[in-house]
Amino acid sequence: MEILGGPLFGVAGAGESHGPAYTTIVFGCPPGLRLSRGDIQRHLDRRRPGSSPHGTPRREADRLLLLSGLYDADLERLLAGPDLLAVSQRASEGERASEGERASEGQRASEGQRASEGEWTRTYESGITTGEPIAAVVLSASKRSADYAQVAGPTGEVRPGHADLGKYHQSRGTADPRGGGRASYRATISDVIGGSVARLYLAAHFQTVLLSSVVQVGPLRTTRTPADEIERMVVAHTQARPVPAELLGELERQLRAAEIPTLDRGFAEEAAALIEATRAEGDSLGSVVEVVAVNVPALVGQPLYQSLKVRLMGVLGGLNAAEACEIGDGLAVAERRGSENNDAIRATGFQSNRHGGLLGGITTGMPLVARVTFKPTSSIRTPQLSVRQDLEEIEFRLRGGRHDPCVGVRAGVTLESRMAIEVMNAVLMHQAGMPAPQAFTLFR
Amino acid sequence: MEILGGPLFGVAGAGESHGPAYTTIVFGCPPGLRLSRGDIQRHLDRRRPGSSPHGTPRREADRLLLLSGLYDADLERLLAGPDLLAVSQRASEGERASEGERASEGQRASEGQRASEGEWTRTYESGITTGEPIAAVVLSASKRSADYAQVAGPTGEVRPGHADLGKYHQSRGTADPRGGGRASYRATISDVIGGSVARLYLAAHFQTVLLSSVVQVGPLRTTRTPADEIERMVVAHTQARPVPAELLGELERQLRAAEIPTLDRGFAEEAAALIEATRAEGDSLGSVVEVVAVNVPALVGQPLYQSLKVRLMGVLGGLNAAEACEIGDGLAVAERRGSENNDAIRATGFQSNRHGGLLGGITTGMPLVARVTFKPTSSIRTPQLSVRQDLEEIEFRLRGGRHDPCVGVRAGVTLESRMAIEVMNAVLMHQAGMPAPQAFTLFR
Amino acid sequence: MEILGGPLFGVAGAGESHGPAYTTIVFGCPPGLRLSRGDIQRHLDRRRPGSSPHGTPRREADRLLLLSGLYDADLERLLAGPDLLAVSQRASEGERASEGERASEGQRASEGQRASEGEWTRTYESGITTGEPIAAVVLSASKRSADYAQVAGPTGEVRPGHADLGKYHQSRGTADPRGGGRASYRATISDVIGGSVARLYLAAHFQTVLLSSVVQVGPLRTTRTPADEIERMVVAHTQARPVPAELLGELERQLRAAEIPTLDRGFAEEAAALIEATRAEGDSLGSVVEVVAVNVPALVGQPLYQSLKVRLMGVLGGLNAAEACEIGDGLAVAERRGSENNDAIRATGFQSNRHGGLLGGITTGMPLVARVTFKPTSSIRTPQLSVRQDLEEIEFRLRGGRHDPCVGVRAGVTLESRMAIEVMNAVLMHQAGMPAPQAFTLFR
Amino acid sequence: MEILGGPLFGVAGAGESHGPAYTTIVFGCPPGLRLSRGDIQRHLDRRRPGSSPHGTPRREADRLLLLSGLYDADLERLLAGPDLLAVSQRASEGERASEGERASEGQRASEGQRASEGEWTRTYESGITTGEPIAAVVLSASKRSADYAQVAGPTGEVRPGHADLGKYHQSRGTADPRGGGRASYRATISDVIGGSVARLYLAAHFQTVLLSSVVQVGPLRTTRTPADEIERMVVAHTQARPVPAELLGELERQLRAAEIPTLDRGFAEEAAALIEATRAEGDSLGSVVEVVAVNVPALVGQPLYQSLKVRLMGVLGGLNAAEACEIGDGLAVAERRGSENNDAIRATGFQSNRHGGLLGGITTGMPLVARVTFKPTSSIRTPQLSVRQDLEEIEFRLRGGRHDPCVGVRAGVTLESRMAIEVMNAVLMHQAGMPAPQAFTLFR
Repeated sequence: MEILGGPLFGVAGAGESHGPAYTTIVFGCPPGLRLSRGDIQRHLDRRRPGSSPHGTPRREADRLLLLSGLYDADLERLLAGPDLLAVSQRASEGERASEGERASEGQRASEGQRASEGEWTRTYESGITTGEPIAAVVLSASKRSADYAQVAGPTGEVRPGHADLGKYHQSRGTADPRGGGRASYRATISDVIGGSVARLYLAAHFQTVLLSSVVQVGPLRTTRTPADEIERMVVAHTQARPVPAELLGELERQLRAAEIPTLDRGFAEEAAALIEATRAEGDSLGSVVEVVAVNVPALVGQPLYQSLKVRLMGVLGGLNAAEACEIGDGLAVAERRGSENNDAIRATGFQSNRHGGLLGGITTGMPLVARVTFKPTSSIRTPQLSVRQDLEEIEFRLRGGRHDPCVGVRAGVTLESRMAIEVMNAVLMHQAGMPAPQAFTLFR
Repeated sequence: MEILGGPLFGVAGAGESHGPAYTTIVFGCPPGLRLSRGDIQRHLDRRRPGSSPHGTPRREADRLLLLSGLYDADLERLLAGPDLLAVSQRASEGERASEGERASEGQRASEGQRASEGEWTRTYESGITTGEPIAAVVLSASKRSADYAQVAGPTGEVRPGHADLGKYHQSRGTADPRGGGRASYRATISDVIGGSVARLYLAAHFQTVLLSSVVQVGPLRTTRTPADEIERMVVAHTQARPVPAELLGELERQLRAAEIPTLDRGFAEEAAALIEATRAEGDSLGSVVEVVAVNVPALVGQPLYQSLKVRLMGVLGGLNAAEACEIGDGLAVAERRGSENNDAIRATGFQSNRHGGLLGGITTGMPLVARVTFKPTSSIRTPQLSVRQDLEEIEFRLRGGRHDPCVGVRAGVTLESRMAIEVMNAVLMHQAGMPAPQAFTLFR
Repeated sequence: MEILGGPLFGVAGAGESHGPAYTTIVFGCPPGLRLSRGDIQRHLDRRRPGSSPHGTPRREADRLLLLSGLYDADLERLLAGPDLLAVSQRASEGERASEGERASEGQRASEGQRASEGEWTRTYESGITTGEPIAAVVLSASKRSADYAQVAGPTGEVRPGHADLGKYHQSRGTADPRGGGRASYRATISDVIGGSVARLYLAAHFQTVLLSSVVQVGPLRTTRTPADEIERMVVAHTQARPVPAELLGELERQLRAAEIPTLDRGFAEEAAALIEATRAEGDSLGSVVEVVAVNVPALVGQPLYQSLKVRLMGVLGGLNAAEACEIGDGLAVAERRGSENNDAIRATGFQSNRHGGLLGGITTGMPLVARVTFKPTSSIRTPQLSVRQDLEEIEFRLRGGRHDPCVGVRAGVTLESRMAIEVMNAVLMHQAGMPAPQAFTLFR
Repeated sequence: MEILGGPLFGVAGAGESHGPAYTTIVFGCPPGLRLSRGDIQRHLDRRRPGSSPHGTPRREADRLLLLSGLYDADLERLLAGPDLLAVSQRASEGERASEGERASEGQRASEGQRASEGEWTRTYESGITTGEPIAAVVLSASKRSADYAQVAGPTGEVRPGHADLGKYHQSRGTADPRGGGRASYRATISDVIGGSVARLYLAAHFQTVLLSSVVQVGPLRTTRTPADEIERMVVAHTQARPVPAELLGELERQLRAAEIPTLDRGFAEEAAALIEATRAEGDSLGSVVEVVAVNVPALVGQPLYQSLKVRLMGVLGGLNAAEACEIGDGLAVAERRGSENNDAIRATGFQSNRHGGLLGGITTGMPLVARVTFKPTSSIRTPQLSVRQDLEEIEFRLRGGRHDPCVGVRAGVTLESRMAIEVMNAVLMHQAGMPAPQAFTLFR
């Protein structure tokens, strides 16, 4: 079953790129955490294609609707989320017969007759988690249905580098071809919703903060990365005290100030220029993204088969388009000797973080550091050799669609979310073994 | 995590009695099954309080919205489900200030200004399963918020026989008190949605049919039960041939014709009268419900710890308000000798079904038969000794709310659904071990 | 996968009736619990066929070997368990050529030549749990291989009431026919091992005690049951204080004093006589067994699909030969009115226990009470109509084998074990959500 | 719970480095596969420290004992495995009092008195899988108990680069310090046992072969790798036909001929020399290992959260001492453009394998290719800054113990095993959705 995380804190997701909505259920958030729509929406906004820190009036896209798992005795506060209305289409059949595309929203809603058959409900805006599953829905904006004709059905063209061939045959021909169907990057909406809940919990209990940065775009690399800055902060503060929120907030601001999240302004400019040039040529670029968690609770992570290392390698390195995952110093350790690689330990903590916050799959309290390599976007305008689903050979030429030429640029929030989900689950797993006698009494 | 069934076919549910919606994700339905909204809606309608075969124009309640997991090349057909609209409440703050209760639906929808900020999406009506998760939402009608004041907060009164005390303290005071919160019987919406998908699959592949009947109400019992009728049919037809759909359809019609689902008209009348009389006295009644699956695939069910017997006993006997579960002849076997209890086997199949379709936790192909005992509804008007959440002692008197005095009457569809889900999962588990070499080739 | 309990505390089992050994892995026991071989062995001894409180010198059967998951700084104490030796058979091929049956143990071990190729290892006797998986092996005594000829292969005879037919075809003819293979009751060795660990943990933290009693044998019933005695004790002591160990110990002694575990001496005598008479006639008897947990932690159990009611109904009612499971007053509630069935609540706790310790699937702190109905043993000497695996019709006459005519008599320890495992898992699930800030710091 | 793979095919493991035995249960192998002890033993032998293709008479170490899950109508064949004997130590207390170390094996076994209290059982040598769990035990040879004194207890010294600190505090002081306890690389015995079963199944059904090669040792790299050779073979043979066993067997022979598994003789010699020199200096070396599966069934792998990419990245990259995992061309893709990275597709299959056999987490039928980076062995003789468990600062100097200076050299078989387990589970998951109507009939 499609569950991210678990068995204690887990996220179930459903939805296809051009389907009506993405549906997410977050399991296992303990009761007592204040959660508002905005806490999640701000991370969803970072995930969105076309999101940008500078400028352009905010479009109400990927709007989150919270449907369960919260409560507040102040019902006005709880129920201040967007209203949700379901309307039977039978009421407007005459109208639809004449519309090729969808009628404008204003037009449709003005028909009292139809709305009178619908049902209104208020959704949640802000409440306290009850311990029950938290459900959320993000509706899809309307999609141009013509886009996918090239790839549909038995004579559909197989896009090189995509899952098209596998999906089509695995589903025995019934896969949804629109916009990549379930394989679309848009499915990470569920990851981000679950991750946002986890972040809130971790922040409330441990002051944990998660950050990410692009560190390579095609051949361009930066050496100024958050992991290094944060390692210095942690060693300076000693591991017993959390790195202060102000310091981390400042880093966060810097990372979000640039169009490409990085601390290195020169790299940002060069990389942005390269991306634009590559897009203009109808081609795409690979990249590497670093993700860091700071103020991580020590001592979490199961042994061996369910270790936090197994889990993080899986969810980070297994993301769409990812081809490699490194923890700590990663690939670089192959060239080292043990005497160069082991981190010295003092009474105040580890003196360096080559190990990336994990030893034996258990957190050490040092920042969790991972880097994920993304392949260049597979959808490119350059013609390529391919086949149709029925294996007839073709030269594939992509029609329509705007494609992000460097997927890593927006992948950071998803990596942060997945890391947060796994750390949260590991925290609950560790708590499970801690005796809490007061938690089992009802009468006095 | 709250999953019904699994690990192959499973159902995730979320939602509270008075919350905005129930959200359901169905995992693991194989690709290629035609599924329409109506296939599920008709079982949801049976589940609903106040549903009745005779009479009263149908109210559009518990309306199903399908959000993912289906596809149809005919997009008009696929997208013919109800429209869904999300509208930000900020647009109408002036309006809301003056409304104590929700404004009428017509009024609100007529405001073009507000709708223009909303997002429309079309939901699915009918398609082919793609193998991806199927998500569904059922919006809640508006609720009177006054109802729950009696039970809310630290001085809330604990309703005897309910989970109130446990829920409140387990959640450290944050449980949703409205209408029982997540503990409401309304949560079985998810069971029925998942079960409807499973029934379709089982019917398509094995002609499986699931039925249920009330067999006891308080002290009244019937001896004419579907299990007995069906046992006779199966033995007569031999087990190699499925019982014909017409015969089963006729049984189904009889069961649904009475207000209380039973084949015994006399029992139905007496029981209905007793229920009404008991309701008038402010009291409630226990009951027993029988559930039967016919044309069950043989040889499904895992050994020992995940046997189909373990699974069915759990999901049927573990339903809200259930206090006992029997398989086959159940409690009656305690009094028997082995020579009376073993079922004779001939080349055409078992000659009787005391074993209820399971031996060693594996299906024999004979009908699966279970009976579930439900306690009398805990919510009654009669005063009872209880406490507040803070343990102050009170005499509890239920305010407001109409309560079904005999919960078993409507429980059948949920039991059928849960049985279907477990059988479906067991079928997939069994198929997993069957070599299917043709399923792994892509190129020729 | 064959796991009992879980996802936090779970038991994996493997082994067949006449195979070399039963292998058990217990997952998720928190670190810090002292555990000795005797703690488990005494429950294994209760499980064994032929175990009897009075008399006969103890045979070293079903001897437990602990292989992992414990540690003690005193290695002599840790490693004082039985020695284990593996010897290659190649060393003694000449010898074996002439032996039809196994050579006597003394003979074989005296061959220095062979042992010198073997490996000795010391197993664990007593240690502290480390949090790692606890593995245990119980070797099988040698079995007479002739017993199973009647049921082996495609012309093997199908024993009525057994899983033979299903197992044979499900495994496509490869099932182990000896002594029922994996379907044997002997597989409950794993349940008892896991349950023994859970009991120790629950006793250490909550003074929980688990008891069981036969309450019906064929037509004979007793009304004096542990559940009633204990209900009185709990109400008398108030729920805030555990029932004293002395009182429970006295009950336990009474239950174990009789050959049939019951508090009712008259019933025990009558039942024992009936069992003997039935055995003499080559027939068998059904029975009902009650299982009770006292001093149960309140507030444990997940909602809905994984509620403790779902879990207990499943593992208790799903045991081999079980046909029904009741919680609390069970089947009796069908005849009641709500005003008779709800339990009154006072500041000191519940005033009665019709609910059997669970409301809404969550523990109330009142004793957990369940009753399981077992069918009469399927293996009887009376001839019965059956088939061979290839469906040739036969009259089945059981050859050889001594069979317990009333399986319920020894089932209690398995029911206690399964209940303990589920309660333990529920305790850990509940602890998982309790913040334990001190558990996450490494440096000071 | 500690399960590798699953939910259909999974491996449960237990055991500590110096404990009595490693215990493994393999779940979910379908019935009908012939399996002998040798099929597993030959992979276990490759895993062992000190294993070497040339030379030294084979020591009977890491000997496999099969305890369940197999059957053969020829019982002599089935039961021809080593004999297993358990002996109570009480019989030899006098003897033990005087022995500092374990008595020699010959001495002990010669005592008839003691053996006469023991139980012999024969273990399995060769049989057909029954579909039930397969249990295996590998006994530990005796261990010198003095080795671990340096690291035991609250004043135990923390070995830099190891899990010591985490394990000690996570277990609240009860972790087994001997030889790394459960964190030892020796725990991969369970991986290899499970992997061997999976390999047999995959070979029988798809002619799948798994290979591995060291491709980097410290600064030394080879460019001649199995993945490249095999890519050429597959493209030459077209994907519809499996690569012939002879070709793969020849590769396998070459890889196993060298002390360091590689196809590049020059690299092998240089690397071996570097390893020896580094060992002499008391230091250690990082490395990279490539693992490849050929003749992989296409179309297996779940979507998104449980995709085969997620699973493989997790189990391969999450292995002890691993710091990075790459699929296909891995890190190298970061520098590429899409037009350079997408693999061309023709009617006969993919024309190259930059994607490493996975697109969208689903197998394409091209070889699965992964590379794992291992850190230099943490245990080195060079002094390092560290602390005691109680955080007292020390200079750590490793006492005793021989340590492999380059862990990658022997890691290949474990990587192959883990890859086989995940592919096997994915195959069963895919089969689960394929209708197999003939598998559900019992009577004709």
